[in-house]
Amino acid sequence: MSTNSFGRLFTVTTWGESHGPALGATVDGCPPGVRLDAAMLQVWLDRRRPGQSKYTTQRQEADQVSILSGVFEGVTTGMPIQLMIENTDQRSKDYSDIAEKFRPGHADITYWQKYGIRDYRGGGRSSARETAARVAAGGVARAALQVLAPELTITGYMVQMGPHRIDRSRFDPAEISRNPFWTPDAEAAALWEDYLGQLRKDGNSVGAVVEVVAAGVPAGLGAPVYAKLDTDIATAMMSINAVKAVEIGAGMAAAELTGEENADEISIGTDGQPAYSSNHAGGILGGISTGQDVVCRFAVKPTSSILKPRKTITRTGEATEIVTKGRHDPCVGIRAVPVGEAMLACVLLDHILLHRGQVGGNQGRIG
Amino acid sequence: MSTNSFGRLFTVTTWGESHGPALGATVDGCPPGVRLDAAMLQVWLDRRRPGQSKYTTQRQEADQVSILSGVFEGVTTGMPIQLMIENTDQRSKDYSDIAEKFRPGHADITYWQKYGIRDYRGGGRSSARETAARVAAGGVARAALQVLAPELTITGYMVQMGPHRIDRSRFDPAEISRNPFWTPDAEAAALWEDYLGQLRKDGNSVGAVVEVVAAGVPAGLGAPVYAKLDTDIATAMMSINAVKAVEIGAGMAAAELTGEENADEISIGTDGQPAYSSNHAGGILGGISTGQDVVCRFAVKPTSSILKPRKTITRTGEATEIVTKGRHDPCVGIRAVPVGEAMLACVLLDHILLHRGQVGGNQGRIG
Amino acid sequence: MSTNSFGRLFTVTTWGESHGPALGATVDGCPPGVRLDAAMLQVWLDRRRPGQSKYTTQRQEADQVSILSGVFEGVTTGMPIQLMIENTDQRSKDYSDIAEKFRPGHADITYWQKYGIRDYRGGGRSSARETAARVAAGGVARAALQVLAPELTITGYMVQMGPHRIDRSRFDPAEISRNPFWTPDAEAAALWEDYLGQLRKDGNSVGAVVEVVAAGVPAGLGAPVYAKLDTDIATAMMSINAVKAVEIGAGMAAAELTGEENADEISIGTDGQPAYSSNHAGGILGGISTGQDVVCRFAVKPTSSILKPRKTITRTGEATEIVTKGRHDPCVGIRAVPVGEAMLACVLLDHILLHRGQVGGNQGRIG
Amino acid sequence: MSTNSFGRLFTVTTWGESHGPALGATVDGCPPGVRLDAAMLQVWLDRRRPGQSKYTTQRQEADQVSILSGVFEGVTTGMPIQLMIENTDQRSKDYSDIAEKFRPGHADITYWQKYGIRDYRGGGRSSARETAARVAAGGVARAALQVLAPELTITGYMVQMGPHRIDRSRFDPAEISRNPFWTPDAEAAALWEDYLGQLRKDGNSVGAVVEVVAAGVPAGLGAPVYAKLDTDIATAMMSINAVKAVEIGAGMAAAELTGEENADEISIGTDGQPAYSSNHAGGILGGISTGQDVVCRFAVKPTSSILKPRKTITRTGEATEIVTKGRHDPCVGIRAVPVGEAMLACVLLDHILLHRGQVGGNQGRIG
Repeated sequence: MSTNSFGRLFTVTTWGESHGPALGATVDGCPPGVRLDAAMLQVWLDRRRPGQSKYTTQRQEADQVSILSGVFEGVTTGMPIQLMIENTDQRSKDYSDIAEKFRPGHADITYWQKYGIRDYRGGGRSSARETAARVAAGGVARAALQVLAPELTITGYMVQMGPHRIDRSRFDPAEISRNPFWTPDAEAAALWEDYLGQLRKDGNSVGAVVEVVAAGVPAGLGAPVYAKLDTDIATAMMSINAVKAVEIGAGMAAAELTGEENADEISIGTDGQPAYSSNHAGGILGGISTGQDVVCRFAVKPTSSILKPRKTITRTGEATEIVTKGRHDPCVGIRAVPVGEAMLACVLLDHILLHRGQVGGNQGRIG
Repeated sequence: MSTNSFGRLFTVTTWGESHGPALGATVDGCPPGVRLDAAMLQVWLDRRRPGQSKYTTQRQEADQVSILSGVFEGVTTGMPIQLMIENTDQRSKDYSDIAEKFRPGHADITYWQKYGIRDYRGGGRSSARETAARVAAGGVARAALQVLAPELTITGYMVQMGPHRIDRSRFDPAEISRNPFWTPDAEAAALWEDYLGQLRKDGNSVGAVVEVVAAGVPAGLGAPVYAKLDTDIATAMMSINAVKAVEIGAGMAAAELTGEENADEISIGTDGQPAYSSNHAGGILGGISTGQDVVCRFAVKPTSSILKPRKTITRTGEATEIVTKGRHDPCVGIRAVPVGEAMLACVLLDHILLHRGQVGGNQGRIG
Repeated sequence: MSTNSFGRLFTVTTWGESHGPALGATVDGCPPGVRLDAAMLQVWLDRRRPGQSKYTTQRQEADQVSILSGVFEGVTTGMPIQLMIENTDQRSKDYSDIAEKFRPGHADITYWQKYGIRDYRGGGRSSARETAARVAAGGVARAALQVLAPELTITGYMVQMGPHRIDRSRFDPAEISRNPFWTPDAEAAALWEDYLGQLRKDGNSVGAVVEVVAAGVPAGLGAPVYAKLDTDIATAMMSINAVKAVEIGAGMAAAELTGEENADEISIGTDGQPAYSSNHAGGILGGISTGQDVVCRFAVKPTSSILKPRKTITRTGEATEIVTKGRHDPCVGIRAVPVGEAMLACVLLDHILLHRGQVGGNQGRIG
Repeated sequence: MSTNSFGRLFTVTTWGESHGPALGATVDGCPPGVRLDAAMLQVWLDRRRPGQSKYTTQRQEADQVSILSGVFEGVTTGMPIQLMIENTDQRSKDYSDIAEKFRPGHADITYWQKYGIRDYRGGGRSSARETAARVAAGGVARAALQVLAPELTITGYMVQMGPHRIDRSRFDPAEISRNPFWTPDAEAAALWEDYLGQLRKDGNSVGAVVEVVAAGVPAGLGAPVYAKLDTDIATAMMSINAVKAVEIGAGMAAAELTGEENADEISIGTDGQPAYSSNHAGGILGGISTGQDVVCRFAVKPTSSILKPRKTITRTGEATEIVTKGRHDPCVGIRAVPVGEAMLACVLLDHILLHRGQVGGNQGRIG
């Protein structure tokens, strides 16, 4: 299998570099008969698009997606769907600095060591521009999910920027789309504006934590033992640029709990279905969804391309300093929010198809 | 690909249930000509084997592994290697309680809902006994790594039990094998003995954090963008029973860092190779190894099978309570240490082969 | 993916050597709730078992299969099913001749060149004994097919031995199990007895053509363009030892037809479903099943292990001759009949699951 | 894995329909550092391009390929290579006939039954236009093979058209590119001109047999038992549109041989390497290449789109007749020649990488 692919039945293969003519995704395994057009995908791409606030890169990209195959008369045909986004703002600039020096914290050095050649313009294949293709693919997944699991919703938001966490008692879903940080905490948003504004002026950057929640997930998704739903979510999230950690449910904090605290007690809900007293499990037990909210979080490290000078070496091995000018995100975690949502959409659709394939629908009844 | 398989070129497919006649792993893609016998694997299995201290389950399993194929005259042939471990202590007990009720925090309910049938004896396929097969497979990987990357070492240890973290200033590698917790901090070990002893008496359990470090990893392992080395490590670790979070390098803490702090500065070391001022990246940049230590951590939730009564429901949907008797680990994180090591060994070998396959060895020189 | 695996959702990974302690298959992706026990598999294994007539190898193997996992209380659980067959008649003989010389037409030389080590006893991994594992896996597939496609039947038979073809006007399905050649033509069977008897006395061997037909195959199985049903059948059949060609429908003879002759005309049958005037397509159009019989054929080359002396070289490169004593099939095509059936069962089940996964059942109606 | 992908390490995923805006291939796993530009691919595409003689479809397509990713400064980077071919001659015509009726022998009916929607324009995804993407991908494989196996050559040619076989005693490699049929037999070419000219005038079509030979293949390529070199070749060839049979070496004729005749005797050649008295094996023993020529053949059925009226049904189930006007190949086997070559190039490169990955080069020496 291509190392640029993920998924089991619903598969996504991305391609393209930051400053090449175009980038995109080959999406395969989508069920036939799903309504789909470019405008439906554009909605999601517009959420990730750069240059929308002063807190993201100032690169101006329309991120306009074309559907080149797999859709006929506004409906998916079951054939591979080719999604292409042309690069339009590959600013002609002098890349000699990045070409010769390695940015600390960046893929520059490892790509060079491994491949002996790298497209250094804008980070080439290692650029976060690749995530545009994921968001487009996620749009396809969402369209199919609307048919196969119409009650399923996916919501991402930032819960931490640098040392500043949100206060969950102020959690307001309506707030998420009102601030430039996709955060549900209006006070945090205000604080972060100042905090990130200062960092940006200093030519610095900062990390973040993004949480993505899927509600209305059918019970029964996931499979033992290397296709657990949580495993596939971890795979999906960790593959996003700059992600250094993934948590499901209680996450790292599960280590601090006793068995008594951690075990979400079960009862029968008013709908006759199992209900849970809490959700430490993040909606997944034994790798299979319970029907509760699927909850994951991931940490995004700060952008390595900063104006602060950092010590490094040249390709010929000489000591030097590097200052990365250009258009960069002071907190790349912001734009990771729609990316995380897209990845979760892909994983959930994939498991709906996989479940239908092997099992044909849940086999065990309770009550 | 089987949902019970992982790996790209070096693949591991595990099979078997806790209380079936046997369990094991089909290991494929191992290079030919590697010295291998059952005793070499037994060393690793003995580290994971239950019943070795009062802090792990009292089930008595020899965990004796047989090599049924793929080895001839003490050397791997390049053919699939079948590793089998017979179950010997499937205590004949009354499972009616677990058969009818669902343990909160356990796979009982989701397996039932999905499959409509489950081997409830000892957790069946969802039991941590499955990890014995991983440890055996990891032993094969280690044998091959000795040939292909002789300087590579893999060391796992516990860094947190419940709320109690180790003090890294007391880190002593020699201490790891001296205490029943695989922890490098002797004082933590002493504290944990009391702490876990009390929990055990109370019929409770607790979570933990395990760290696994690979030193001597060649630069250049990993591939964009869905076969990043960190992605494949996250996949491997998250697939282990009870794991709820995976971190690479700085992990969740990367969210708190500025770009200036996070970017590990580069210089030329005394060996003429790139050297780094720090290792926030956990030895991986852009998904490709730098040559620094590869560092990952994972959180293990507390065992769900506890003596503390928890509210739950029966298969027929009636409210009830459950108390899980039987032989269970009060801190399953302890036995996850050799499992994490084994998984990292498998991932690293897989990427060495993958790198050799596509690239044929590092192509870029520095200096 | 393991190079010893095949299948997409229903996957089979085989392992083991001719003269090792055991061989088997790890079967994964089987739907849960399918009745299964070892006796059901034994029926199929007994058809392939050696030593049943003077026209197959005289090696005495019970080929008794054990189910080590994935079945609970007589029903599949959806977990991987481990099938093991212990080798019992690994005759202790002197293998020094085969160890040092390469049999012409055999894998001896290529295994040696590639791996630098080979289990030469009985051909090791390249032995046709590996097909016992396929037949056992095929038995699992058949059990699942009985549930998912109860009208589907699979029948294999020999249509040619050496230059002698059957006369299709004498085709009698009932005859197939009455002669030692699985041929539907009683007169051919009589002729072949003499023909093969003479070859056997001469220490020679001969090739054969096997045809396998699946009736009652639902329309709609298969997927563009690299998972066509005919492609997956070709993959499955060509992977069988000694197979050198695979045909679907008209096969090689399709080259001789005009478009007018080849195009199977379509009408509406008495059941209101599409009916076809002929079946040159072998039941597959555009890689997708039509509902007609799926028809494939494969050619099996003659066994290379013969008493006739052949010129060859030793491992040290010296010219020599080889005469292969031991217990060998004069026409290995005979025992390939149940193997071909098993492979077709696996492919069809796999595509039923794949179809259900992506498409969820046929979407287009006629009439 | 996508059902529109093939390959293990060198993977090709094709996408696109006959009459959509474009089609192409995502090629991944190519080694870095290989010289590549669009002109190098165009050479191969021009051989497959339609409209070049009166014996192929008169559709005028430039088949101009663009490289959208994975190449930087004229060299592959190891990243996915996106190859795009825009469709330019999608003649605006009335497709209502094909939209409503099913062509006998064509994918029309099965696509409809399975997916409930099909892009009927020019056959949509089932069109042989998809093979343009294969030829482009094969061009990438050839470029890499030039580096990794510089002595390897791949040559395809037609050996049979309808009932007319070439006379192998007249085989002249130089003749292949001199006639419109890619046949090495000048007399056959002359005969076929008349034969096919007449069929074309009659509005009929005919099948063909194509042979593809790779010389200079290193020994040691291929792997047991489901990744045999011959299995992967069969997979590749059978996936080509209209192919109904694949043969390796002696192919179906192997059934007629005795073991004595079939076993290619081995000696030591003048170069100190193993030499063979014949090549019934088609250069592959036990699924692994011997170093002899790799020889395969495949049968291509006649085009189903013919002017001869054929009985069929409509989507609503009514009996009717169909006459397919439009621009079609009277012998689609002609244009399958460069396609077969491309597929073999892909398979061989894939196995070179796989061999290097697992084994790291041949381990056994002779002499």
